[in-house]
Amino acid sequence: MNLHDDMILMGEKAVAASRELAKLSTRRKNIILEAMANEIAAQKETIQAANARDLSAGREAGLSAALLDRLELTDARIDGMVKGLLDVAALKDPVGTRISLWNRPNGLQIKKVRVPIGVIAIIYESRPNVTADAASLCFKTANAVILRGGKDAVYSNAAIAKALREGGAKKGMPENAIQLVETPDRDAVRELAQMTGKVDLIIPRGGEGLIKAVAEMAWVPVIKHYKGVCHTYVDASADIEMALAICENAKCQRPGVCNAMETLLVHKDIAAEFLPRMIERFKECGVELRGDETVQKIDASVKAATEEDWHEEYLDMVLAIRVVDRVEAAIEHINTYGSYHSDAIVTADADAEKAFLAQIDSAAVYVNASTRFTDGAEFGMGAEIGISTDKLHARGPMGLEELTTYKFVIEGTGQIRP
Amino acid sequence: MNLHDDMILMGEKAVAASRELAKLSTRRKNIILEAMANEIAAQKETIQAANARDLSAGREAGLSAALLDRLELTDARIDGMVKGLLDVAALKDPVGTRISLWNRPNGLQIKKVRVPIGVIAIIYESRPNVTADAASLCFKTANAVILRGGKDAVYSNAAIAKALREGGAKKGMPENAIQLVETPDRDAVRELAQMTGKVDLIIPRGGEGLIKAVAEMAWVPVIKHYKGVCHTYVDASADIEMALAICENAKCQRPGVCNAMETLLVHKDIAAEFLPRMIERFKECGVELRGDETVQKIDASVKAATEEDWHEEYLDMVLAIRVVDRVEAAIEHINTYGSYHSDAIVTADADAEKAFLAQIDSAAVYVNASTRFTDGAEFGMGAEIGISTDKLHARGPMGLEELTTYKFVIEGTGQIRP
Repeated sequence: MNLHDDMILMGEKAVAASRELAKLSTRRKNIILEAMANEIAAQKETIQAANARDLSAGREAGLSAALLDRLELTDARIDGMVKGLLDVAALKDPVGTRISLWNRPNGLQIKKVRVPIGVIAIIYESRPNVTADAASLCFKTANAVILRGGKDAVYSNAAIAKALREGGAKKGMPENAIQLVETPDRDAVRELAQMTGKVDLIIPRGGEGLIKAVAEMAWVPVIKHYKGVCHTYVDASADIEMALAICENAKCQRPGVCNAMETLLVHKDIAAEFLPRMIERFKECGVELRGDETVQKIDASVKAATEEDWHEEYLDMVLAIRVVDRVEAAIEHINTYGSYHSDAIVTADADAEKAFLAQIDSAAVYVNASTRFTDGAEFGMGAEIGISTDKLHARGPMGLEELTTYKFVIEGTGQIRP
Repeated sequence: MNLHDDMILMGEKAVAASRELAKLSTRRKNIILEAMANEIAAQKETIQAANARDLSAGREAGLSAALLDRLELTDARIDGMVKGLLDVAALKDPVGTRISLWNRPNGLQIKKVRVPIGVIAIIYESRPNVTADAASLCFKTANAVILRGGKDAVYSNAAIAKALREGGAKKGMPENAIQLVETPDRDAVRELAQMTGKVDLIIPRGGEGLIKAVAEMAWVPVIKHYKGVCHTYVDASADIEMALAICENAKCQRPGVCNAMETLLVHKDIAAEFLPRMIERFKECGVELRGDETVQKIDASVKAATEEDWHEEYLDMVLAIRVVDRVEAAIEHINTYGSYHSDAIVTADADAEKAFLAQIDSAAVYVNASTRFTDGAEFGMGAEIGISTDKLHARGPMGLEELTTYKFVIEGTGQIRP
């Protein structure tokens, strides 16, 4: 068989599995998730042996230390996968819950009910623990999943998927609820993205190039997990101590993630008082600063920011700083250069807050808090499949509810349309 | 300028307009909608003159009588557009409403709030009144819209769009809130579908070929309004009088629409009693019947159904009929041949109802009612932009709420992530 036929067969198996999954009770799904957790724990040595093969191939291929670190399945990371599976078992099941209910004058009762999406394909890169995380969230919501991991983690992913399937099978999981694409052929991603009628959603996670390629080739719906060019705007009315703490946290607490601050905007009336202290704190944290002319006048050691800096997602200890005349200029800057991910205002002024909340069209808009809170667990969702930067179906952190859709259930007593 | 640059400019204007639209109050939007209604009424003769040009070109091009009828803007249809605009003004505005609110242990308050989608492109075919309907629903939800109508209605659409823009401008509508693509170049649709970062959603309405082409070329999210291969399953336990009335209504009341029944499934234990009476009623309505062997044994005048018939969306006075052994066989048939639009069971048996509701994954699943109710107005939504056959973002009738998305608004008192 060729790749196309292989992938179509995989899609058909997933559709069949999704129909079986729709029949499972929440209790049965949780028993299966616990069995998967047990199996990951029981097969720990096998998984780590597979991981050792990936690590050795990675070292030979000259992967960076950072990539090798992300790839490694330490004891703690395997324990983390086991705990993750048990955590998902403990989460509330959204499937079957009623979103709304109303009655029509003709006596029809209309219910909007949460249902699984169907078949979800997930494309991801290096970290192999995503295999267990993504599979468990899709399974809990009764979606069949087709996983396609990174080539660097091919043995690790296969070992994890095998353990999940074997553990699940012991308690009655449909055989093809979890499938892993093992071929290294890159066209497998194209096949998944164009499998109309079989794949209901494809979620690409990883680098910008991968995500853009999937979005452009896809015929099925895509939810992108794209970059975060996040801003914090310190208004003229801001409490300075609060602004210092929020900005330091947003930039320095974990600079390599999508909800970290990349550009700081400061109102001109507070700049002279706020910026010297803020710049000092950033320097203490080791942040490289790039500012506009006003910032450079306040501190000559700050490098000049270029047009490119306003667009940049550094994911590193680098920050662009700009001074603005008014809240509207901050809004204009964010709407021009931002990525609609997470943006914050620090203010004590109700009008500035109102304008910012109304006009900033980002997935998460903050008042007087760090952008670092954009996260499924921090939002209280329990777990997340990722953070959507798309506007449709799901925005921001995607938990279990976001892995469901709805259908209308209409109950009548013989109504016909006049 | 070339087409690509023209379209990018149109996209940029739409993005700018969408930012202005986000600032309008509900009251202002309603005043603008009323001004649009007045202007359509005031420019009735101009619009009808433009329509006469389309009709005469259509007659020359040999359009069918049915297409010419759909194209014609009679007095009643212009009145209908005016009423439609006023109806939309009277609908509840979903923008800004709170979907949910919760507090986190660290004191953060998280709100999920409805917001406009941004820029919506709508591709449609012959009926020019869609220009006013689609524009008004997008405007009410503060979305900028780019309309691309059918080539047969080019003058009519331009006249309607001009009246809407002129009417709206009198009361402060942002200039580019409503834009119409007037070039006949078919590549304009491709440009719209690939305008990442400017167009947030494209909705193709019309023939299967157009919809498939848009879905495949699109880089931006698409919500398809596809076909309806709708089923009614008459269970062994069905009330026969009720089943007769529901099936006649689902097939005959308006056969040319997507929520009309295309295939009737009948439980074998009720077939001998039910089918002769049902077939008689269908014949009285003038329905051409195609059945399986069991149906043909009951009535030899019924033609044999082929495999193709089970897939067919007739949109006409034709019906396929199949006898099944049990509810599971009906479910299997619908999941194999259906289009996940609207499917009904007629039953008095709680177990059959439960199985059908759980396992039929269609946008609208009915118990003891006609599938003809799948419609925004019938569901009480007031108006609809169409009926989504996609699973993501919106399923089934799409009203105003479905033209919005959400964002998270997080209010703090200086929280930082530990």
